[in-house]
Amino acid sequence: MESQKGRERGGEEVITINPDGEVGDGEEVDLNSYFKTADDSSLTEPWMIRRRVKALKKILARGMQIERKFYEEISILERKYESLFQPLYAQRLQITSGKCEPKDEECDFPEDSDAAYELLQKARSDNKGSEGDEADGIKGIPHFWLTAMKNVGVLAEMIESHDEPVLQHLENISVELVAEPNGFKINFHFAPNEFIKNSVLTKSYTMKNDVDERDPLSYDGPEITNCHGCTVEWQENRNVTQIQRQKKIKDKNGSVKLVTEKFRVPSFFDFFSPPEIPSDPNFEMDEEVLVQLTRDFDIGQFIRETFIPRAVMHYTGEAETDHGSDEDEGDDETDYDGLSDDMSNLSMNKPREADPYDQ
Amino acid sequence: MESQKGRERGGEEVITINPDGEVGDGEEVDLNSYFKTADDSSLTEPWMIRRRVKALKKILARGMQIERKFYEEISILERKYESLFQPLYAQRLQITSGKCEPKDEECDFPEDSDAAYELLQKARSDNKGSEGDEADGIKGIPHFWLTAMKNVGVLAEMIESHDEPVLQHLENISVELVAEPNGFKINFHFAPNEFIKNSVLTKSYTMKNDVDERDPLSYDGPEITNCHGCTVEWQENRNVTQIQRQKKIKDKNGSVKLVTEKFRVPSFFDFFSPPEIPSDPNFEMDEEVLVQLTRDFDIGQFIRETFIPRAVMHYTGEAETDHGSDEDEGDDETDYDGLSDDMSNLSMNKPREADPYDQ
Repeated sequence: MESQKGRERGGEEVITINPDGEVGDGEEVDLNSYFKTADDSSLTEPWMIRRRVKALKKILARGMQIERKFYEEISILERKYESLFQPLYAQRLQITSGKCEPKDEECDFPEDSDAAYELLQKARSDNKGSEGDEADGIKGIPHFWLTAMKNVGVLAEMIESHDEPVLQHLENISVELVAEPNGFKINFHFAPNEFIKNSVLTKSYTMKNDVDERDPLSYDGPEITNCHGCTVEWQENRNVTQIQRQKKIKDKNGSVKLVTEKFRVPSFFDFFSPPEIPSDPNFEMDEEVLVQLTRDFDIGQFIRETFIPRAVMHYTGEAETDHGSDEDEGDDETDYDGLSDDMSNLSMNKPREADPYDQ
Repeated sequence: MESQKGRERGGEEVITINPDGEVGDGEEVDLNSYFKTADDSSLTEPWMIRRRVKALKKILARGMQIERKFYEEISILERKYESLFQPLYAQRLQITSGKCEPKDEECDFPEDSDAAYELLQKARSDNKGSEGDEADGIKGIPHFWLTAMKNVGVLAEMIESHDEPVLQHLENISVELVAEPNGFKINFHFAPNEFIKNSVLTKSYTMKNDVDERDPLSYDGPEITNCHGCTVEWQENRNVTQIQRQKKIKDKNGSVKLVTEKFRVPSFFDFFSPPEIPSDPNFEMDEEVLVQLTRDFDIGQFIRETFIPRAVMHYTGEAETDHGSDEDEGDDETDYDGLSDDMSNLSMNKPREADPYDQ
């Protein structure tokens, strides 16, 4: 069979027909040479074309106004749904803080790990004296929010070990949509503690959803434009963002002065002192500050849209390991400057593509 | 002054106070060693904690149902706004196809390039004989959609030079939201031409917005789950996706047979023959096919949400060069497998972060 084929091939004469139906001369035809390519030299196009393009742009500018209203309506929807989520967040807080022990029928969530769970349960009832009593002494879910934050790369990076004793007192993180100015507040609620006097630390983000009159075609939906922190009121000598050093200074005459020097150390609480954006729009901001702000905006968006709603999945670490469709699809975009994979899914409103199996 | 400082420094004695208020012995203090780190060993946590985590998961599963309804309402909003955009798309088509010449007051969109535009206009009225007559003979905006597609990296890659003579007849690209099954159709409308018989080629995308009963916590908003193409009906001998070769085969007895061989060549029109997703969810799909489908879903989403609404900006190439805030912010994520920057902004519903100056 193989040799028969070989003989046929040896005796073949090839006639090529290209898609125009012309008969070639037996050589392989390069189709490309048969067609002229499209003219995309829009810069040299005649005035009449430019005029029509201007008309299209004017139509698009009207489209941007419609799109702005679409996002306005989404923003109203978000407010409506925020109030529907609140009771769930309140129940979550009751459980994490230990104010309320869930009933059995509130805990029957089926999971793959249920075999181990039931073994633990059995061991507990068989041997009430050991694990039982000890565990019953634990109030709620200790360090729920700190653990959840430490499981998210981009948040973990912000937390220094000297921040942890403070963040162990973090009881809740909540988000609050704000109408005027449009935006949202992230509230970090602390139990009374020996480090800070504030019961709530707040980071506020301002958003705008305006079509710029001077450049309407640049509109691309709501965007965060600014953020503000708050003053952390530290208990005396408990400011973990500073190291104090006292120096005794002896001058050449032998007299001694006592000088206190303070050094700032990196801290999670720097999150509440973001760089200020100058009101002068022509002030050229430092590239590094710009990167820092972008990152801050990303983090705020992420905490609001993903971290707070799905906190339990970050507490268990499942949000970080169950990438599911994302990884299966070979979505190997490089993380930007250490932003974790979670950050690539910043938006609650973003329709996503599914693993085709996942139907 | 410099030497005075030097002397002081030489005589200094350092006392360090750490944030706990304890006085150190003059050595620099490592704050980290003063605090124990948070316990994040959730896998070994006692049964009572596991039980509370289960309660939180059950609460989150209810949250997912609320989130699903939120997206359902967004989907209703999208339908409402689709109908508001239609008149604008109809006007655009009138202009690009040349069915209607815009009035002067419809073309007064101010731009940076207006000086050049006015020079062209003046030259035209001064010298009606040359550019004027020639340009007036041009109907609409020739090759509007082909040019726009060729300016977008990810679409340009799909277009082979043998596709261009066909795509020059592309008159419009429209999107149609579909309720049952939920999804959208992208319609490619062709003027009568010598290549294909179809006046419309359609690519349909199916979406789902269901919380999986077996895995409710994996819910993450609407997702594309499948897509279907259509049959391109080529005019005889005008199928640009095939090269035909006729072979005369002489066997050893000297008799001649004429055999026609067809070879497929890569083509934009492969977009209408996406891989089929087997209905058996346990069928293991080829990794390469999975990547191809993911890419196809991304492209469909992009055409729907960005390319069709902003087509004029892709025609001029401004959508590709005016990255504005994106680039300023150092958002240097690596493009995935040639997907252009445009693709990183796939979603219409995605709130974006602004250039802080852009307020």
